[in-house]
Amino acid sequence: MTLAVDVVVMAAGKGTRMKSARPKVLHRLAGKALLGHVIERAAGLGARQAVIVTGHQAEQVEAALAAMNEQRLPWRCVRQSPQLGTGHAVQQAMPALPDDGVTLVLSGDVPLTEVATLQALLDACAGRHLALLTLDLPDPTGYGRILRGQGDEVRAIVEHKDASEAQRRITEIYSGIMAVPTRLLRGWLARLDNHNAQGEYYLTDVVKFAVADGVPVVAYRIDDPVQVAGVNSPAQLAELERAFQRRVAERLMADGVRLADPARLDVRGSLRCGQDVEIDVNCVFEGEVFLGDGVRIGAHCVIANARIEPGAVIHPFTHIDGERLGVTVGESALVGPFARLRPGSVLGPQVHIGNFVEVKNATLATGAKANHLAYLGDATVGERVNYGAGSITANYDGAHKHRTVIEADVHVGSNCVLVAPVTLGAGGTIGGGSTITKDTPPGALTVARAKQSSIPNWKRPEKKRP
Amino acid sequence: MTLAVDVVVMAAGKGTRMKSARPKVLHRLAGKALLGHVIERAAGLGARQAVIVTGHQAEQVEAALAAMNEQRLPWRCVRQSPQLGTGHAVQQAMPALPDDGVTLVLSGDVPLTEVATLQALLDACAGRHLALLTLDLPDPTGYGRILRGQGDEVRAIVEHKDASEAQRRITEIYSGIMAVPTRLLRGWLARLDNHNAQGEYYLTDVVKFAVADGVPVVAYRIDDPVQVAGVNSPAQLAELERAFQRRVAERLMADGVRLADPARLDVRGSLRCGQDVEIDVNCVFEGEVFLGDGVRIGAHCVIANARIEPGAVIHPFTHIDGERLGVTVGESALVGPFARLRPGSVLGPQVHIGNFVEVKNATLATGAKANHLAYLGDATVGERVNYGAGSITANYDGAHKHRTVIEADVHVGSNCVLVAPVTLGAGGTIGGGSTITKDTPPGALTVARAKQSSIPNWKRPEKKRP
Amino acid sequence: MTLAVDVVVMAAGKGTRMKSARPKVLHRLAGKALLGHVIERAAGLGARQAVIVTGHQAEQVEAALAAMNEQRLPWRCVRQSPQLGTGHAVQQAMPALPDDGVTLVLSGDVPLTEVATLQALLDACAGRHLALLTLDLPDPTGYGRILRGQGDEVRAIVEHKDASEAQRRITEIYSGIMAVPTRLLRGWLARLDNHNAQGEYYLTDVVKFAVADGVPVVAYRIDDPVQVAGVNSPAQLAELERAFQRRVAERLMADGVRLADPARLDVRGSLRCGQDVEIDVNCVFEGEVFLGDGVRIGAHCVIANARIEPGAVIHPFTHIDGERLGVTVGESALVGPFARLRPGSVLGPQVHIGNFVEVKNATLATGAKANHLAYLGDATVGERVNYGAGSITANYDGAHKHRTVIEADVHVGSNCVLVAPVTLGAGGTIGGGSTITKDTPPGALTVARAKQSSIPNWKRPEKKRP
Repeated sequence: MTLAVDVVVMAAGKGTRMKSARPKVLHRLAGKALLGHVIERAAGLGARQAVIVTGHQAEQVEAALAAMNEQRLPWRCVRQSPQLGTGHAVQQAMPALPDDGVTLVLSGDVPLTEVATLQALLDACAGRHLALLTLDLPDPTGYGRILRGQGDEVRAIVEHKDASEAQRRITEIYSGIMAVPTRLLRGWLARLDNHNAQGEYYLTDVVKFAVADGVPVVAYRIDDPVQVAGVNSPAQLAELERAFQRRVAERLMADGVRLADPARLDVRGSLRCGQDVEIDVNCVFEGEVFLGDGVRIGAHCVIANARIEPGAVIHPFTHIDGERLGVTVGESALVGPFARLRPGSVLGPQVHIGNFVEVKNATLATGAKANHLAYLGDATVGERVNYGAGSITANYDGAHKHRTVIEADVHVGSNCVLVAPVTLGAGGTIGGGSTITKDTPPGALTVARAKQSSIPNWKRPEKKRP
Repeated sequence: MTLAVDVVVMAAGKGTRMKSARPKVLHRLAGKALLGHVIERAAGLGARQAVIVTGHQAEQVEAALAAMNEQRLPWRCVRQSPQLGTGHAVQQAMPALPDDGVTLVLSGDVPLTEVATLQALLDACAGRHLALLTLDLPDPTGYGRILRGQGDEVRAIVEHKDASEAQRRITEIYSGIMAVPTRLLRGWLARLDNHNAQGEYYLTDVVKFAVADGVPVVAYRIDDPVQVAGVNSPAQLAELERAFQRRVAERLMADGVRLADPARLDVRGSLRCGQDVEIDVNCVFEGEVFLGDGVRIGAHCVIANARIEPGAVIHPFTHIDGERLGVTVGESALVGPFARLRPGSVLGPQVHIGNFVEVKNATLATGAKANHLAYLGDATVGERVNYGAGSITANYDGAHKHRTVIEADVHVGSNCVLVAPVTLGAGGTIGGGSTITKDTPPGALTVARAKQSSIPNWKRPEKKRP
Repeated sequence: MTLAVDVVVMAAGKGTRMKSARPKVLHRLAGKALLGHVIERAAGLGARQAVIVTGHQAEQVEAALAAMNEQRLPWRCVRQSPQLGTGHAVQQAMPALPDDGVTLVLSGDVPLTEVATLQALLDACAGRHLALLTLDLPDPTGYGRILRGQGDEVRAIVEHKDASEAQRRITEIYSGIMAVPTRLLRGWLARLDNHNAQGEYYLTDVVKFAVADGVPVVAYRIDDPVQVAGVNSPAQLAELERAFQRRVAERLMADGVRLADPARLDVRGSLRCGQDVEIDVNCVFEGEVFLGDGVRIGAHCVIANARIEPGAVIHPFTHIDGERLGVTVGESALVGPFARLRPGSVLGPQVHIGNFVEVKNATLATGAKANHLAYLGDATVGERVNYGAGSITANYDGAHKHRTVIEADVHVGSNCVLVAPVTLGAGGTIGGGSTITKDTPPGALTVARAKQSSIPNWKRPEKKRP
């Protein structure tokens, strides 16, 4: 029997050790808010809804949720105020949870639980048991231990300080994640009290009610601490970031991607790769990036929101960011080193973009080249155009951006200025050092150049002796 | 009773395994000479003076000491020549050490002992005991062991080769660092002999004199090998460099700084950070750097001697070095990627410096922009100025540097040359491709541009067939 | 008695887990094909020949071998088709192996066995024994174990699944590498059968024939798994790449090179260093690179096929690639940050190449400077020349490259275009913004510049309100 799953996400905590003005669950791991990772997992699980329990800095959390676009499931927020413990937090969510489902309790600061793990926990719950996600930890000191009975069923969670010597040798601990039929949970939450040292309502007390009621308590046990690790400090955040990136690297390598150093790769978003892709050291990928068959990415590149077609080579120190418009690098194109491709750059096959060249919102047709120190913005560049070193499209008149059209086979000399709007006719040549303000005829040589003259025996200024 | 502390620093060793022309104690860790770290610690302790025992390449060491500016305590050098052992080294320092103080013996190649550790050692000395800094080492093979008596007092240091089986199981070893009342030390040093296999005078022999004289020998024991590790080879230097950087990263994170990868951060000097600072992978900081609240530093940046005001964003591949003059980046300014800010660059709020732009000894007022391939040197740039792609301040006439003044709201076109000294009047516009040699009037359009003309049906040179 | 050594390299495997269109043995480690590493080792051993057994994608492997230039020994390929096991593979090689030698069996996907190890194995073979290279592995689960007799001689290799409890406690395993007198090998191979679960001819069966024939079977045992590790997946390739780079770093440091972070260095080829060389984080070296005494390499540099003379300083973010022509950086030259030196760049002593400057196929004499945003290609630059910011040598007319000659002491202003072929006479000055198309006289000021004029009260275009 599979019941609908409603996810409750604990997101009310303060996160003092983050020492940040930002709510803890909005800190980013691999470029995405911790809470976004958790909700993405819930969506991956096919949950019916997510109920996020907010508290500290609730407005900020709720605003961020509204802005996240990776959510593929209905969600709502409930406020926990004041904050009286984990049981109390889930109590706030109860009005939003129908009795016919299973409640899966997740933490907004535990980003890396895998969907398969949560699914296995739900399977263990089976719509009628209390299912706890537990972790085997070589050194469990300080954590609550899982006590199991004869038939391997869970009997209790005992806190470290209350545990006997024998109990302390138990290495299985509770992760904070549980799945429980909502109807049962509702009853148990109603029986919680805060008669304990902290004066809080503990969600873990439901274990004792389940045992008392004869409801089987089952545990799905894993031994991968990363999946249940929470973020309470920048150091823990960095540690999980590295664990995440290590897994990304392993997954890419298993798919055949060759990484020069798996420990020096950062993927923040989605990186899809064809066959025989090679990525050198220290590359950073952000947003949606696609690398086609045989693409090679040189050392120290930062690439975001881009599509690199098969056979293209990106040389070291290249910065590509397509933002919302995207960037396309065509088949067998060569880019870099020290190139920057900005949003709306569309390079055709065999295009070459060389060092200290910036391209923005420009289309370059097959075989066009801009190899040295140049700016190509708001431009349409034809096939086989050669765009000279130091040349600039002056696309901005201080108020509007205008377009430069360079037709096929034009050669633009060095240090030219093309004042847009302007069209350079096909096959034309622009003399080096020309400022072009009017359209140029096809097939012609166009220059705008002053006469060269010399003043003999000219003395350069000299440093005066003090 | 707190006595004045005189620090003796052993800095006479040869360092053969460094395979370097530079004296060992002048090799740099985190950008500072090993000896500089040791003296900084002594100063942090409030020592009365440092006496540095030099020997090999003494002149170089002494010259470097004279040039170090981090010293906040009186120091002098004494020469040890020839070098007859550690006891002999300290003997050379004795004439400089008044009887009323405590002598703290440090090594010039042990850079990372913490001030708190040394203070605890001095507390253990209490002005009347011989206090040894000792280390617990899981595998102490090869090191001299600390033998303690019933009352936990130290009885002797026994060399590994002389140790019994039982003694070899002792994991506490001597670190080479001791604190001792100078009056007692003087007497013991006078009793040293060199009747041993090496024919050297060993400082550790003072332990046996103390025991013989009934002076308590106490040990302050730590378990952090990094604090007492010495540098004898480039590999050890690199290992300590990494240990130091790991600690810097941990300290920054504990203060709330978010690091994308703590293992890929290098801080050589002082990095102070406000709240919610984020630093991406592979950044290097040198000298004095301040990052204000909310500053974000992109991947692969090198930043030295700079002040980055709150909210500024430094994009990847940015190189900032203020050297002696410093660099300031204003609030919410955007810099990079591929930008370089050189000494004396002062960027106001909301200034934008883009790719392949170099700024040197220039002040940019609020909202000024130089977004592409440009050089701004020896310039004063007004508010909201737009400095075009490819434009250059020609500030150097071969002998002197001259100043360019660009008043508020000027738009400089692309590929202009501004031949300094020159002033561009407020609100003016400079046409693209102009070389400006005379001041320009405010509010005017100024151009220096040749007429554009075309030669029809022009044939470009063609490759001859061989 | 030393016999000639014939090396058999197993290179027929498929390498499915590489998920690549490239044959497994052609994947690159440290820039060189795995098979190239193996053949280099064979050459280093002074082998008489290498016989490479190819199979899957044999044509590609054979073509790559023909193209490798590091081979210093005769080689030939034999095809194994179909592939019926390791013994069958060696059988294919037998016609090429004279009876008077020793056969050393290596794997094309095991790149990091050291020459000294192989030599020790050959010494153990001594021209008359069967010698196995074995490895001590803390956890040998799954591997075949080495059974030894009373006199330490090898009695058998027993597969894990066939091993008794006692045998499974043996930690010595077979590496896949053996040395055996060819005459004996030939007889044993003739006796192989494929009566086993896989239906394959196993090379390891020769052990049992040797024992049966009374030929001593000896083992040379190592405990360094890297030396016998094979590459079957991108993850294993990356792991070996890192192990290789770690060893390179250790070797460099043992020679006195100071590395800011040994874990962030990549050497793909040969890096030779003088005394007191310092290399900052994240540098990549390819091909043949020489760094002279006291050279300092800044963070994030990529340097290939270059010779950096003593005292030169390479600032961060510098990209040098000499390819076949090479690059030379002269004594005490300063290069970078953000500089790119391309093939045929020859910088003399004290030359300065600054940010966003590209040099290609150009010679710069002592003290010449190009400090900002410039292109120098196909040029001969004299002593003390100052090449202005934004200046470009226009060396390409669309068909041919022409040469620019800038004689000693010329000052080229900013944003100039030098249209090649052209010669700038010694001591001349070129005014900023000039396009130079004709030779300039020595000692003269040459300009090509339009008159500056202003249009008062000029209104820049304004954004229309929508």
